[in-house]
Order: sequence, then C-alpha cells, then structure tokens
Amino acid sequence: MQLKLERVSVRTRTIGEFVEITDQVDDVVRRSGIREGIALVRSRHTTAAVTCNEPDPRLHADMRDAVYTTFPASEPYRHIEEGPQNAVAHLATAMLFGESTWVAVRESRVDVGTWQHLYLVELYEARMREVDVAVLGE
Amino acid sequence: MQLKLERVSVRTRTIGEFVEITDQVDDVVRRSGIREGIALVRSRHTTAAVTCNEPDPRLHADMRDAVYTTFPASEPYRHIEEGPQNAVAHLATAMLFGESTWVAVRESRVDVGTWQHLYLVELYEARMREVDVAVLGE
Amino acid sequence: MQLKLERVSVRTRTIGEFVEITDQVDDVVRRSGIREGIALVRSRHTTAAVTCNEPDPRLHADMRDAVYTTFPASEPYRHIEEGPQNAVAHLATAMLFGESTWVAVRESRVDVGTWQHLYLVELYEARMREVDVAVLGE
Repeated sequence: MQLKLERVSVRTRTIGEFVEITDQVDDVVRRSGIREGIALVRSRHTTAAVTCNEPDPRLHADMRDAVYTTFPASEPYRHIEEGPQNAVAHLATAMLFGESTWVAVRESRVDVGTWQHLYLVELYEARMREVDVAVLGE
Repeated sequence: MQLKLERVSVRTRTIGEFVEITDQVDDVVRRSGIREGIALVRSRHTTAAVTCNEPDPRLHADMRDAVYTTFPASEPYRHIEEGPQNAVAHLATAMLFGESTWVAVRESRVDVGTWQHLYLVELYEARMREVDVAVLGE
Repeated sequence: MQLKLERVSVRTRTIGEFVEITDQVDDVVRRSGIREGIALVRSRHTTAAVTCNEPDPRLHADMRDAVYTTFPASEPYRHIEEGPQNAVAHLATAMLFGESTWVAVRESRVDVGTWQHLYLVELYEARMREVDVAVLGE
C-alpha cells in the first residue's frame, strides 16, 4: 500500500464559477504510480467547495441560482465584514456542496461515473485556490 | 494494510426511493478479510445520492418533500432536456445529500452508529445504479 | 502504511451548538505516530453533523438560522414522535452539513486551511456524542 499526498492550485476568475479539476486529480494519480485504490479530494477553503457533476454550463447556472434562492444575499447575516456574499459563500460551501469527496482509482486513473466530473466551485471571488489530493492504494 | 475495491449494483424502483445498502457494503467488508479500518462508499451517478440515516419510511418521506420544497420542480431550470425532475435530481445529489461518505470497520463489520443505516437515494427514475465501495485496513 | 482508528467523545450543551473538535482529531493524529497521510472524521449520529468552517460565532448563528429557514420546524413532518426539531435535525444532518469529512495530515498534524476548523454541530439536544476518527499514512 502506497500514499501520495499533494496540493494542487486552481485559479478562479469569478464568483459562481465551476472550475473542472478532474484532470488535475488524475495527474496526481498518475504521478503516484498507484494503479488501484482511492483518491480523496478536498478544498482548503471555507468559501470554495468541491463537488461532482455533469459538465453542462446550464446545470452550473441552475446550481448558482439555487445557491441564492436557498440562501438569499438579502438576509440580515451577522458574519458581514466582507459583505453578504461572503456569508452566503460560507453557507453554500459547508451546507450545500461540501468541501470534500473521494473517487475510485482503477487502472491508474480516476474512475468516475459517465456523467461525473470533479469541480472546484468558487463561491466568493476570483482567487488562487488550493485543493488537497491524497491517493492511497497499490 | 490491505485494499479491496468493488462495485456493487443497486436496483431502484421509483423516484424518491431510499434503497438500503448497509448489507451490501458489509458484504464487501466481509469479503475483504479486513478486520479494522475504513469503508468508503460512493454513488457513480449525478442523479442518485448516498446518505446515512434512520430506517424510518416517514423520515424518508419528509426528506423527499424537503427536496422539492428546497428545489421546486416548477423553477425555470436551464438543464431541461430530460425534464425539470432531472435538474432537481442533479441539484439534490450534489447540493443536498452528496454522493459519498465513509464508515468505520471494526471486528470485520461496518460499524455505524445505532440509528445509522446507509442508503442509495434514487432522485430521478427507476434504474440499475452502481456504487463504488473501497475497504482499507488490516 | 499504518492505521489508527479511534472513537472520541464530544459533550454538547444545547441545540445549534458548534463544538470545535480540531484538537481532538489532532490528538488522534499525534497518538497514531503517522506523519503524512489522511484523517477521516465522522459523526456516529443522525442528528449531529460534522462540518468545517471559520471559528466565528456570528457565522455559526447565521448557519443555525439557515437551518430553520431551509427546513422550518413548523412543517407537517411525519417523523414526529420526538418533536419537529428532531425531524429538522435529521434533515439538516443528512441534507445540509453531512456527517463525514476528511483532512490531510502533514508533519504529524491535521493540516487544514487557514480558516478551516472542524466542528461537531449539535442539531437536536444536549448529549454525549461520539465521533469516529481514522488516520492512515506513514
């Protein structure tokens, strides 16, 4: 059993952006030399999430809308120093998308389902974000 | 340290169904020969979730209702080719239940809390679904 | 590759409380002797969640409010024997926060992002709660 732990950087350009990171996770798997096992993926942020979904920009727009319908920016949030969008970003990261997931590794590749792609979701503002990737297996 | 990675099939019969998969995950643990460690569980779909909860059909009905109260099928979704229920299924999988979890393995068994059972939640329509199960331990 | 699996106890004092558990997870990592790897964290309950966020009590209050705005206690829940707050606790655990996560281990410590702290969220009532922690690595 082997372990590879890496941190990858992801540049985001605007609030609500879905940045695909499947290839970056796959690169860590390939560098690990591990053929079968698991890859765990996790955002190191409280206003940027990790999620898995279909690569359809219209679906991502639906999800963006759903964030603001569920947690309207007009609510009287208490965590307000950085603006209401920042409070919503915290809520959407922890309470809607989550910040972590895992995927199977088979034949030295990330083995996700047909419609599953991995994304970092930028919920606050354009930033350089960091994602921890751990690969364990044989 | 050993690894066992399997894919199990789960038949669903209707939208909103909670199909218990605790025994199927437990079977993978038993076949692995691993006595202590972790079992990771993950749906390979974007419209079927994995979750953990009490085996009470009334609670599952409450959760079904909560999906449609949070993300009404009447919203003008953009991801619409397969109908509004499909958009809601994507949102509920990624933003409410999530598609992955992990549980402890002790004494060669899945060791969940007293009220915790593992479920695949069918959020779209009757299908044969696939769940990845990885067991790591000694 | 080594494994350490422990169960830690967490006392909660009131509904809606965020109890920080970062140090308790860190203690398990330290006792494991593992320098690099992963730590998986999971609540053994269906009415108490595990989440990761900023240590700002005002943000936690915003999250508490968001639970009851999303899933009002006034809804006609079917899972009602223990009161509507219990139904809401189940929904918020499974559908909002989730009960499990993982974090990287580097230099024998839990390596979370700058603003990330680990919490058990009490969603029902004052209790002694249990959290499974698994550390894998080298």
